[in-house]
Amino acid sequence: MEPFNNYLNFNTGEILGNCNILIRHLSDMEGMYHDLEAARKIINEGDRLIYRVYNIDVPEKYGHLQHCTSIIYPGRIGNEYHMTKGHFHAQEDTAEIYLVLQGTGKLLMQKKDREVKVLDMQSGSISYIPPYWAHRTINTGNTPLIFFAVYPGEAGHNYGIIKSKGFSKLIIEKDGQIKVIDNPNY
Amino acid sequence: MEPFNNYLNFNTGEILGNCNILIRHLSDMEGMYHDLEAARKIINEGDRLIYRVYNIDVPEKYGHLQHCTSIIYPGRIGNEYHMTKGHFHAQEDTAEIYLVLQGTGKLLMQKKDREVKVLDMQSGSISYIPPYWAHRTINTGNTPLIFFAVYPGEAGHNYGIIKSKGFSKLIIEKDGQIKVIDNPNY
Repeated sequence: MEPFNNYLNFNTGEILGNCNILIRHLSDMEGMYHDLEAARKIINEGDRLIYRVYNIDVPEKYGHLQHCTSIIYPGRIGNEYHMTKGHFHAQEDTAEIYLVLQGTGKLLMQKKDREVKVLDMQSGSISYIPPYWAHRTINTGNTPLIFFAVYPGEAGHNYGIIKSKGFSKLIIEKDGQIKVIDNPNY
Repeated sequence: MEPFNNYLNFNTGEILGNCNILIRHLSDMEGMYHDLEAARKIINEGDRLIYRVYNIDVPEKYGHLQHCTSIIYPGRIGNEYHMTKGHFHAQEDTAEIYLVLQGTGKLLMQKKDREVKVLDMQSGSISYIPPYWAHRTINTGNTPLIFFAVYPGEAGHNYGIIKSKGFSKLIIEKDGQIKVIDNPNY
């Protein structure tokens, strides 16, 4: 395989080059936000773009490195901040790295034994998600949260566990503050 | 293993947090620049700092991801631009990713069958070094070349082949221009 370049715009998170763009509207995440009524209303009123991923095309095989930028737009569904779906890696014993380019947010992680960890995300933060931790990112700011991610070629995605059970914590706004609370439905 | 954060300064390349700093002076690279006399003179006059690596401490094992920033200071040894030692991965079937934060340069790559490839490095360029390609970075600008790198935990470094044979190409300045020329000693 031949080496190649792509080009990242640090301000917008866009990648110019050979990449796929994944677009997630609220309707692609039904049931993931705890305020089901607020979510249904927004979808019925014409839906909302929550996040976008620029994913560079690399073989999904051992030895390779998947890499992408994610752009989570600011906003809330009810009192819950915009977030990604979140997932375990299908190959669970693989790590991931996030380098934040713009914006502020939280990185919510959880193991199968229910251990939970939340890290702050801000411009320049490099988060290390070790093997076995499911991960979801949440934009708690007023501007897009943009980060560059790298993970092993064979890692894959397992969305099912998070889709059916969620995380044990929610990141919400309460009285103008960012709060990490227990998920009442967990 | 618990998740953790470190903090990157995009302007200087410094990482604040739990990392090792690797410092390479010209004396650590003896014989790697083709103008041996120019190199010896600089070393005798007090040596010179060529590059610095901020390396985050992660297990050197499958599933993990090594990550670091490299800062190559501008300058030349004779007519050859400042560069890194360059290496194959010890585990040869592993890739690497470079995201350039500041500066301009060249990424010189070579396979064991002698196939050579040179990519440009500039702010925002994301270079994909596929498995089996040795890699060296060269600062061809007047400011530090700073990039963020990620590679698999188990990749390791094999410096020996490059140390004894070099790359088949040199990146030099000639008449104020950046030139890629054949290495006369290869």
